[in-house]
Amino acid sequence: MSTRIRVGIVGYGNLGRGVETAIGLNPDMELVGVFTRRDPQSVQTVGENTQAFTMSELDRDRDDIDVLILCGGSRSDLPEQSPAQAGRYNIVDSYDNHAHIPEHFAAVDAAAQTAGTTAVISTGWDPGLFSLNRVFGESIIPQGATYTFWGRGLSQGHSDAVRRVPGVAAGVQYTLPSETAIERVRAGENPELSTRERHTRECFVVLEEGADAEQVRTDIVTMPDYFEPYDTTVHFITAEELARDHQGMPHGGFVIRSGQTSGGTTSEGTKQVIEYSLALESNPEFTASVLVAYARAAARMNRAGDIGAKTVYDVAPGLLSPLSPEELRKSYL
Amino acid sequence: MSTRIRVGIVGYGNLGRGVETAIGLNPDMELVGVFTRRDPQSVQTVGENTQAFTMSELDRDRDDIDVLILCGGSRSDLPEQSPAQAGRYNIVDSYDNHAHIPEHFAAVDAAAQTAGTTAVISTGWDPGLFSLNRVFGESIIPQGATYTFWGRGLSQGHSDAVRRVPGVAAGVQYTLPSETAIERVRAGENPELSTRERHTRECFVVLEEGADAEQVRTDIVTMPDYFEPYDTTVHFITAEELARDHQGMPHGGFVIRSGQTSGGTTSEGTKQVIEYSLALESNPEFTASVLVAYARAAARMNRAGDIGAKTVYDVAPGLLSPLSPEELRKSYL
Repeated sequence: MSTRIRVGIVGYGNLGRGVETAIGLNPDMELVGVFTRRDPQSVQTVGENTQAFTMSELDRDRDDIDVLILCGGSRSDLPEQSPAQAGRYNIVDSYDNHAHIPEHFAAVDAAAQTAGTTAVISTGWDPGLFSLNRVFGESIIPQGATYTFWGRGLSQGHSDAVRRVPGVAAGVQYTLPSETAIERVRAGENPELSTRERHTRECFVVLEEGADAEQVRTDIVTMPDYFEPYDTTVHFITAEELARDHQGMPHGGFVIRSGQTSGGTTSEGTKQVIEYSLALESNPEFTASVLVAYARAAARMNRAGDIGAKTVYDVAPGLLSPLSPEELRKSYL
Repeated sequence: MSTRIRVGIVGYGNLGRGVETAIGLNPDMELVGVFTRRDPQSVQTVGENTQAFTMSELDRDRDDIDVLILCGGSRSDLPEQSPAQAGRYNIVDSYDNHAHIPEHFAAVDAAAQTAGTTAVISTGWDPGLFSLNRVFGESIIPQGATYTFWGRGLSQGHSDAVRRVPGVAAGVQYTLPSETAIERVRAGENPELSTRERHTRECFVVLEEGADAEQVRTDIVTMPDYFEPYDTTVHFITAEELARDHQGMPHGGFVIRSGQTSGGTTSEGTKQVIEYSLALESNPEFTASVLVAYARAAARMNRAGDIGAKTVYDVAPGLLSPLSPEELRKSYL
């Protein structure tokens, strides 16, 4: 590839900042700038030379952008932005509202087909890399069971739920995969696992002055849907401890496919286990890194005339790499 | 997909038998038969209804075969068979002579381009799934290190080497990944690891009558290339123990990519670790299962007009699954 892939970032929160940083680690890519709904003057970018523009700058069909990476939220930003921007640019998004992916795909595909752009939707790690590994696992071992475990990781939604409990001044929640469950799956037992058996939840809470710790604990662990179905541990800590120990956004998890390739499904069968796992110190930076690799693929697919909406299932893995097919065959196969 | 994919197996050793079994677990595929250089009458197939044919049957351009899975060896079978059969049929092979893959690709590609066939070469797990994960890892985390560990697994080549030692009546060799090394890699240390630090080797040996055990042990552990660079353990067992405990062909291993997405490469940086691992009770059955999934992809790519030699890097992952793109997006993403 002789010329660099020119990338625009739409939306500038943790994910957008992660994309900015990731582009700096990929010498075949360059950042055009950040497009934001905020006042561009007010945006503090990671890189001092990063330019910030208003979103409306994108309306004029800029010809200096090969692909836009959309870093907005799945609830209200992406359902609107992805089809709109795919009508002008190649895009990549991380739309993660699993139940609505087919609609999102259809809306983006219609826009991309009309405009002749390429749009990779719902990438990142779940949906994304985990989705890929679920399909690799089932395609290779058709007779078996697939398990996804998340964690240890900070859950934004559950942390918000903790913070809404009366008496809680601040707090975070981590989702932990059950080690016992993972060991049973790794051993090829193909267990049936209840919600409570798969994950546990751990909360670190700073109490408001005068709050009743036991009442707060009870309110958290009995909260329907969020905590009641799990074994939940609540730790009370100081505001200083929260600031010192819980500012990171770690996450990760496991996709395990376990099955038998012969001899039936009992313990007599020939067991085969595929395990894929992520241990991430920064969830947004890692997700951003995946988006950047898929942005490379989107630009290449578009150049090759492969237009429309795509998911990770449609992208040949070699397209993610800056290396040529010849180099990959020679040095990586 | 309304009609089943019709598969022929070329070569009928452990791998060919694994393919036969795997096809039985994939309802969208059917086995045309086994093509062998032996007398077809003498071939004992796994399935009672499996037909065996002479290799020359393939010369007449049979129109009842959608894809051939070549199950011969990389030393002398595949360099000849893959280009020859790609001149008539879509093929999949497991060519694993890493240093010669570019030549093999070129020879197969020339034949496939002329004939309009699709030929997926060098698939299985290494080369194959491990190759994919090395490239996913480096594409997503450009700043870091990639580690491949093999085992615990039976090594055919090293077992042969053990059996050539004077005084050895029979024996097997297992390659073991170093747990210490893996833990250091998982911890994100990005260590430099010597050959001796990555793997150890374990031999189970049946002595010939009157053989000097200590001499045999010394001859094994000091054998250049094969054992000298490793910490090697030799266990002496009886022929009965060998038959009882060492008939399986387990294998597996780990591909770990560890790096930093921000903050530099020291321990201050933001560490991210991707780990892919396989724990296989039967290496040939698992390899066969991968070949069958790629045979599905080869047949589909050919139908879509995507001809020539391909590797795992060129195959969109969704093509491996019997499910439609719509089903994958709805239920797996």
